[in-house]
Amino acid sequence: MDFNNIQFHMSKAIDLAHKAFNFNEVPVGCLIVDDEGHIIAESYNTKEYDQVATHHAEILAIERASQKLNSWRLIDCSLYVTLEPCPMCMGAIIQSRIKNVYFGAYDPKGGAISQGLNIHQHPNLNHRCHLSGGHKHRECGKILSDFFKQKRSHYRK
Amino acid sequence: MDFNNIQFHMSKAIDLAHKAFNFNEVPVGCLIVDDEGHIIAESYNTKEYDQVATHHAEILAIERASQKLNSWRLIDCSLYVTLEPCPMCMGAIIQSRIKNVYFGAYDPKGGAISQGLNIHQHPNLNHRCHLSGGHKHRECGKILSDFFKQKRSHYRK
Repeated sequence: MDFNNIQFHMSKAIDLAHKAFNFNEVPVGCLIVDDEGHIIAESYNTKEYDQVATHHAEILAIERASQKLNSWRLIDCSLYVTLEPCPMCMGAIIQSRIKNVYFGAYDPKGGAISQGLNIHQHPNLNHRCHLSGGHKHRECGKILSDFFKQKRSHYRK
Repeated sequence: MDFNNIQFHMSKAIDLAHKAFNFNEVPVGCLIVDDEGHIIAESYNTKEYDQVATHHAEILAIERASQKLNSWRLIDCSLYVTLEPCPMCMGAIIQSRIKNVYFGAYDPKGGAISQGLNIHQHPNLNHRCHLSGGHKHRECGKILSDFFKQKRSHYRK
């Protein structure tokens, strides 16, 4: 994958994270792109609005992409997400056979990789996904820190 | 939790797994029950019918329970499932703060615990769920082995 393409798609994921921010959701944005560069699905975290714990950006994007392609196998797809996936989302990425995952900010508290849960490298898997993190991580991280800063100042009032 | 109650709810989950079998889905059934014993959600695996990789029985049950209670926090709920949850579903169980998980058959190939991915015990979590497996495991395992036996004989024809 060309570096400029990763930056381009990550910028789109950041735009989606801003939408989540405006809806008072933890700002994480995600998109799924096919091998030809077409955007198959876009999403952002809507856990609070929907009151469903599984409605992380990645799960919603995977469900939308599968519905669009009418296939649970997203074998020729790449997923871009502004925050390192949690174990649930990493599990869903493996289940749906996504080829490449590019994420922005690392998540030392909740990220599957940062926590040492290397689900994507487990020897039992008959599928391997390429994974790379830290893309536009400052921008991705800043939306999150701005969001939590705003939340804290709200509770102090 | 009273042992008879676990057996009773696991029997209900097995009934749901049989429904999945009849729809030609990998037969896994799940239900979520509140502290007073009311069944909040029932589900079975519909991954093939829906063509969505996330549509495992547990994810669907969690989503239905959250919609019913209008809350992503399923703190007073117990989940019963006929097969050991995979990493995705175990992640979803943690995300939704489910109190107790009772599962039937162990899954050495795909189960989160059998694979050593002890997501539910991770030190970073601010939530712990009680987990216990092997309930009615022979019955739960038999539906699965019957299903795959039927699949293999179908392909041999």
